[in-house]
Amino acid sequence: MEDTDDDVPLILTWDDANSGLLSEETERGDENGGGGYDIVNNQVIPTPGPPPNYRSHNASLQQSWEMNYQEAAIYLQEGENNDKFFTHPRNPKALAAYLFAHNHLFYMMELLTGVLLMVLSLCEAPAVPSLRLDVYVHATLELLALVMVAFELCMKLRWLGFHTFIRHKRTMVKTCVLLLQFVEAIVVLIRQTSHLRVTRALRPIFLVDCRYCGAVRRNLRQIFQSLPPFIDILLLLLFFMVIFAILGFCLFSPNTSDPYFNTLENSIVSLFVLVTTANFPDVMMPAYSRNRWSCVFFIVYLSIELYFIMNLLLAVVFDTFNGVEKMKFKSLLLHKRSAIDHAFQLLVSRQRPMGVSLKQFDGLMRFYRPRMSSRDRFLTYKALNTAGAPMLSLDDFYKFYEVIGLKWKARRSGEHWFDDLPHTTFLIFKGINLLVKSKAFQYTMYVVVAVNGVWILVETYMLNSGFSWSRMVPWSYIIFLTIYGVEVLLKITGLGPLAYFSSGWNLFDFSVTVFAFLGLIALAFDMEPFYFIVVLRPLQLLRLFKIKQRYRNVLDTMFELFPRMASLGLTLIIFYYSFAIVGMEFFAEVVYPNCCNTSTVADSYRQINVTIGNRTVLDEGYYYLNNFNNILSSFVTLFELTVVNNWYITMEGVTSMTTHWSRLYFMTFYIVTMVVMTIIVAFILDAFVFRMNYSRKNKEPLLDPEDENGIVFEAEVSRDEALATLELYKKTCPGLSSLNSLQGVLLAMDRSGSSSLVYLGRRSRTKSDLSMKMYEEEIQEWYAEYSRENLPQSNRSLVGRELDIPPPCPEHES
Amino acid sequence: MEDTDDDVPLILTWDDANSGLLSEETERGDENGGGGYDIVNNQVIPTPGPPPNYRSHNASLQQSWEMNYQEAAIYLQEGENNDKFFTHPRNPKALAAYLFAHNHLFYMMELLTGVLLMVLSLCEAPAVPSLRLDVYVHATLELLALVMVAFELCMKLRWLGFHTFIRHKRTMVKTCVLLLQFVEAIVVLIRQTSHLRVTRALRPIFLVDCRYCGAVRRNLRQIFQSLPPFIDILLLLLFFMVIFAILGFCLFSPNTSDPYFNTLENSIVSLFVLVTTANFPDVMMPAYSRNRWSCVFFIVYLSIELYFIMNLLLAVVFDTFNGVEKMKFKSLLLHKRSAIDHAFQLLVSRQRPMGVSLKQFDGLMRFYRPRMSSRDRFLTYKALNTAGAPMLSLDDFYKFYEVIGLKWKARRSGEHWFDDLPHTTFLIFKGINLLVKSKAFQYTMYVVVAVNGVWILVETYMLNSGFSWSRMVPWSYIIFLTIYGVEVLLKITGLGPLAYFSSGWNLFDFSVTVFAFLGLIALAFDMEPFYFIVVLRPLQLLRLFKIKQRYRNVLDTMFELFPRMASLGLTLIIFYYSFAIVGMEFFAEVVYPNCCNTSTVADSYRQINVTIGNRTVLDEGYYYLNNFNNILSSFVTLFELTVVNNWYITMEGVTSMTTHWSRLYFMTFYIVTMVVMTIIVAFILDAFVFRMNYSRKNKEPLLDPEDENGIVFEAEVSRDEALATLELYKKTCPGLSSLNSLQGVLLAMDRSGSSSLVYLGRRSRTKSDLSMKMYEEEIQEWYAEYSRENLPQSNRSLVGRELDIPPPCPEHES
Repeated sequence: MEDTDDDVPLILTWDDANSGLLSEETERGDENGGGGYDIVNNQVIPTPGPPPNYRSHNASLQQSWEMNYQEAAIYLQEGENNDKFFTHPRNPKALAAYLFAHNHLFYMMELLTGVLLMVLSLCEAPAVPSLRLDVYVHATLELLALVMVAFELCMKLRWLGFHTFIRHKRTMVKTCVLLLQFVEAIVVLIRQTSHLRVTRALRPIFLVDCRYCGAVRRNLRQIFQSLPPFIDILLLLLFFMVIFAILGFCLFSPNTSDPYFNTLENSIVSLFVLVTTANFPDVMMPAYSRNRWSCVFFIVYLSIELYFIMNLLLAVVFDTFNGVEKMKFKSLLLHKRSAIDHAFQLLVSRQRPMGVSLKQFDGLMRFYRPRMSSRDRFLTYKALNTAGAPMLSLDDFYKFYEVIGLKWKARRSGEHWFDDLPHTTFLIFKGINLLVKSKAFQYTMYVVVAVNGVWILVETYMLNSGFSWSRMVPWSYIIFLTIYGVEVLLKITGLGPLAYFSSGWNLFDFSVTVFAFLGLIALAFDMEPFYFIVVLRPLQLLRLFKIKQRYRNVLDTMFELFPRMASLGLTLIIFYYSFAIVGMEFFAEVVYPNCCNTSTVADSYRQINVTIGNRTVLDEGYYYLNNFNNILSSFVTLFELTVVNNWYITMEGVTSMTTHWSRLYFMTFYIVTMVVMTIIVAFILDAFVFRMNYSRKNKEPLLDPEDENGIVFEAEVSRDEALATLELYKKTCPGLSSLNSLQGVLLAMDRSGSSSLVYLGRRSRTKSDLSMKMYEEEIQEWYAEYSRENLPQSNRSLVGRELDIPPPCPEHES
Repeated sequence: MEDTDDDVPLILTWDDANSGLLSEETERGDENGGGGYDIVNNQVIPTPGPPPNYRSHNASLQQSWEMNYQEAAIYLQEGENNDKFFTHPRNPKALAAYLFAHNHLFYMMELLTGVLLMVLSLCEAPAVPSLRLDVYVHATLELLALVMVAFELCMKLRWLGFHTFIRHKRTMVKTCVLLLQFVEAIVVLIRQTSHLRVTRALRPIFLVDCRYCGAVRRNLRQIFQSLPPFIDILLLLLFFMVIFAILGFCLFSPNTSDPYFNTLENSIVSLFVLVTTANFPDVMMPAYSRNRWSCVFFIVYLSIELYFIMNLLLAVVFDTFNGVEKMKFKSLLLHKRSAIDHAFQLLVSRQRPMGVSLKQFDGLMRFYRPRMSSRDRFLTYKALNTAGAPMLSLDDFYKFYEVIGLKWKARRSGEHWFDDLPHTTFLIFKGINLLVKSKAFQYTMYVVVAVNGVWILVETYMLNSGFSWSRMVPWSYIIFLTIYGVEVLLKITGLGPLAYFSSGWNLFDFSVTVFAFLGLIALAFDMEPFYFIVVLRPLQLLRLFKIKQRYRNVLDTMFELFPRMASLGLTLIIFYYSFAIVGMEFFAEVVYPNCCNTSTVADSYRQINVTIGNRTVLDEGYYYLNNFNNILSSFVTLFELTVVNNWYITMEGVTSMTTHWSRLYFMTFYIVTMVVMTIIVAFILDAFVFRMNYSRKNKEPLLDPEDENGIVFEAEVSRDEALATLELYKKTCPGLSSLNSLQGVLLAMDRSGSSSLVYLGRRSRTKSDLSMKMYEEEIQEWYAEYSRENLPQSNRSLVGRELDIPPPCPEHES
């Protein structure tokens, strides 16, 4: 356990700082262009002879260790973020830029700049009325944001070096877009009016490039990877469409009352829309009324295109997606392993090249997780060190990413939060605890919720037409709310606030109940805009779905999928944004009430009195609302186009007011959303089938109540260990404040009087954990393949170390 | 190889006929209620002592062998058709009925009766105008068909026996429906008018129960098996729908111009329709025009219901479907294995209990495939007998179902069909052969097809509005047709008609070309109804998709899936039929032009002049055509409902003319088709993903040209073998005509002068073959499990035989 102060790092990094420490090492760094792009190239064969003669430079040694810790931390970060190692900082100057560009403040700035640039379109030319800004204001804001982006890029250039910078494709695209936007913004400022700025559609690139939008980038990559097979099938779809368009034109154009097939162009457009089913059965009706057998044409067409090829599309994307997911998992896993390899090499000393000691590990963690308490750093080390050996072997260290996210808590001696209270109080709380944990209580609550559901339904049904807000708070509302409130209070007191709020379901209950109370208050004080809260009350009924295992599974999977879904949603929004900009530039203000009288969809835009037979009614066509007049309207319009139904009305309306080429915009949008939507479907399918396979393979329901907390690690800390560690920490970083937590451990031991404490580290289970279990066997193969690929380049004499053969020298056991 | 005439069957079946032959066996059959329900119960321990004293009854012995052959054939049939063994005929009387009820004539009768009953609805009460029949005519026809069904059921009763009959659920349901229909048909005949006969919706049961509709039954079973998880998720869907309906009612009902949410019922209906997207964005518009933020309600609703839960539905069904497919494959496989076990026991003799000789095998085949030629019977035996041993072991016999479908052909000595022609002719044909096989020729044809495609497109585009049939035959049509004709002729002569027509693609080319010629003739002779053939000509372009591997895969998979797709389509049609009957009974003649003026969809039914502003136009609403006036219209209407778009117009139209409860019909129909469609999607997904996994696992494109012929077996026949077999056959069945094929083999040998001939047996690859390869490892487990389950009940002394331990007695080597 003890460490000698004079351990020398096996590898020295960022040599400028270490000049004179190890002169033969100094060259190495420059030779292969940067500290440790490939471990294998950097490995120095350990020489277990007498130590070199630089023992005296203690401060310098300390400094070189610190450098190593920092670089190891950077490697581990790169492994975590899936940053390629060729962007690894190569020298102290690059390191400074790297550190500047890799912290949450900088990330936040990146994000805000990206968001600001996108939000600007709310205020630019076809602006949302209430947010309109003068040209010089929004152009100045834009220039400001662009300067920020340029600054970020400069930092990146400093860190990457010019060569790597121009090799990095995404960054180069970003630079070009930046220049273009700069020029345009200045032009706008000078002319004091916005020109046709379709290039604004490229703005999302600044957002996508943010560190925090990694998930969106991954989604985009996945979409692009699924494209080739998708396009193949799409061509098949279009091919049949054209063939049928020719057939349809030949068959139906003699019928003059059929507007859908009178020209070849109309014929193709009609059949394109028919694939989306949006104009069915109307498109069939004129032909059908002439000859009943013409329905065969449409039935055959829909069977082939809609029911066969469209499903084929899904199948192909699903299949590709499956493969891509697995490959992505594999490459992430191997990248992490490689990062750990790199870090490990930097942490071992010349004297003990097979293991990382607590001192070195702690040094690493101080850079990797500066906010982590000393106790947690120590516990993480304990969790890695499963064998109880004095040092971490490489195999131990491979588990780094599994334990790093753990939240540590001492195992409670008693099970209830109220164990320490006086006896009478204890008994009361114990009673409450037993009550809220009893099946009877649970089922009573289910019954109450069910009764409440029926009640609301019946009540609303009785209300029917004569609805008003003030009548929305009958006595039943108050009664049920009281019951729920009492339940929440009982549960919080019975289980303790911590245990209560750690369950997602309880949180849900709590927030719905609180909302209901807020609604009541809003009603009491007549705050009209908040009335809608009252209406959320039926959400309580969702609790009923806890009863059945399948629903629990479904809802839990839903929560697990939520981050991924959100990133997919964001990806979709980015597509929306680009299309919205293009739409606004070309179609702003083209549709209005009573426009489009020359098109076949004039009815949907008409808003005047119409005489039918002998009655006069107001014909209200609301479709003029589906316009591109500002970015918010555009988003709603695009959502309507995504849902697909009746999208051709919007298309035809705009087309009749502009040119035929406008259809290209709508059709492209349809195809793009089809791709994204298919990916979303494939993703949901994949996630669920994966989970179900997982739970089948492991022959257990995925989330039984005990398992709900996900991954659990255990670490036992004895008093001696804690004291020794405290000593060590005091020596390495004398700042006392960071040691409070470790002293806390000792205090807790004193209080409980026991000589050791058990700590539990928990984290929620991620998809990666599931994948680890699912692909168990394949992972071993990948690892084997990975080491085969990496070993041959290295010196064969190093093989022993990587395969963890027992060390040849006894100093390890010091 | 030689057989003694006095082999005695190990097991004797249908003992009445064998009375006196083996008296101790006679009891056995009755004891366990039927010849061989379980092999294990029927196994008699072989006694290799001196043969019993019934050697003399040669004729009787022969007869008992014949009985065994027949029963073995029946077992194998049952294995093939997946008939459960508890319906196995138990005695000669049952056997007679079984044989009567198991031949294509009877099956055909079953099918025709089923179809007749269904087709009757074309002529009954709301009949198709041109097919209307008088009540007494169609009622008499119906009675006739029902009598036929009753007769079929009687035969089944005779064969199954009363006990098994009433245990067989499907048959019992059929009987009940039959009785009901009888009563109703008689009532109709007496009253001379059709009453409300909703029970006609049950008619498809007669069709489904047919032997030939096994695939439909399997689909129905699969649908029912996928139902429980489906219903769970459906409930979740409906739950959210009700919650949002309440919210929507509270939020939007104060807006009086919003007809979609003015009552709770309307609110629920609107949201139900919204899940199908059919009324989007119209349903949002009134609220949206009032307050732009109301779109959030609809976006959230659609995101949850349409994009999440609906996909979840697919995921759950897909998952269940996957599992069900595998289980089905497993149970079919084990059932077949068990059938082979049964048959094997019946074919071995007391003297040689370990193997089946050619004589016995041939006897079996005469019953199993009466039409098979003697040559093919022999070749099948050779194909099974891979080891070349004198007898088939059980392991050999297990391959029975793999070889039974093979089509045998002698391997050609030369490769071309024209090898035997005179030299000059040979050279000419050889030249043509080389030409049509050359890449240059193929690609020239692709270019021609592509040019033709562009030509057609441009031509049609130029034609545009002024289209008429007579101008449809320009000179280009004739030129391209001539090129295609020449190509077909060249290919047929170059490859030989047999080779040419054995490729699906060539068949496709041929038929499209022939159709084009027919169209030309039709045009030349002015046969107007056939004009549409001319229009099919662009289908030629499909050939272009041969170029790319992925398309070949997709199209080939499509052809492979076709039988399954057809059966799914038939299943859908059966659902349609039942719904169509119900629809006709309740909604016939309820909609007509200008009906439904009280509903919100009146516009779609209106067909009068309308004054808009100051213009008068004819407002043509065609939706009255979507009615239930006869079964054909009903089918078209139901197809429109399946496509879902605008389905609510039909629903609201009918509802406004009848009662609110009519909506139940449409909603039920939507949910039912949703189930079936989800199954279809799951099926296509499953099939494609399966195939892609397969080709990935086997690291080869699935259908390279060589592999196109599917499964190939080889069998070499020497002259001696052929002669010996001929002798044997002459002895067993002296009818000369059946031996012609075997004599043909000898003749062919004489002609070619060789002493042996190689025959190739081919069949196309089925999904079962693919599954066999995919689940290779699991299959071995299943087999092991199967034998574990079946062995323990049996006498342990028999283990040796089933595991194929070398026989203890030397007579095997005779």
